[in-house]
Amino acid sequence: MACPLCAEDGGALVWRGEHLRVIRAQDAGFPAFYRVVWNAHVAEFSDLSAAERAHCMEAVALVEQALREHLAPTKVNLAALGNVVPHLHWHVIARFGWDSHFPSPVWAPAQRPSPAAQEDAVRALLPALEAALQPRLAALPLP
Amino acid sequence: MACPLCAEDGGALVWRGEHLRVIRAQDAGFPAFYRVVWNAHVAEFSDLSAAERAHCMEAVALVEQALREHLAPTKVNLAALGNVVPHLHWHVIARFGWDSHFPSPVWAPAQRPSPAAQEDAVRALLPALEAALQPRLAALPLP
Repeated sequence: MACPLCAEDGGALVWRGEHLRVIRAQDAGFPAFYRVVWNAHVAEFSDLSAAERAHCMEAVALVEQALREHLAPTKVNLAALGNVVPHLHWHVIARFGWDSHFPSPVWAPAQRPSPAAQEDAVRALLPALEAALQPRLAALPLP
Repeated sequence: MACPLCAEDGGALVWRGEHLRVIRAQDAGFPAFYRVVWNAHVAEFSDLSAAERAHCMEAVALVEQALREHLAPTKVNLAALGNVVPHLHWHVIARFGWDSHFPSPVWAPAQRPSPAAQEDAVRALLPALEAALQPRLAALPLP
């Protein structure tokens, strides 16, 4: 079976580097849901070398910092699961007290309907967030 | 409100170092569910310095590697959520095709009952796993 993260970007491409890319998930039901996808097909975080792990997590931290600076979320959630698509990708999700699932994980049952006006207000901030994030990702030292 | 991860270990203590500890979650419903808990009270991964992040994630990778070597799980799941307890802790969970939720995340609704015999077989391997893990954690360079 073809790996979807080998075949396609996996979402709206924010930035692509030699080792990883950052995409915005468009299917996720959360307005500020990004993924850091390792370009090569590896399943587990510990399949990377220590230098590659550090590079990967510094990219995750840059995305997290951009979410914090631009959106002031209640919390940021980070996860690498891969049970369905075993190609290393980190979910980086801005969570808000008003979101449909908070404080539950995004994979748990919803607590309430999604508030469209608040989600739209977050979405309006994403172009500036992504424009600020791109040069920071480009400045990351390579492993 | 007192932070439970400042007040207590948060589970069965496997190893404690200067900056972080590893605990086995005893309440989780999954037989090989570990947590890497940062000892100081910080909420977000990006509250750490880059050197501290690397140290933290090398500890996560050591736990993951021990799970892979001793248990041969179908997948390892990593997550730092903290919506309920905003004190940085990484979930490191061995997932199996037969477990109650696979391939869903552990926070999603269960797919099937937990198979007690298979869970017991995993639990029987944990003392050796933890004995092998402790010296590796102790050998991690400090940030």
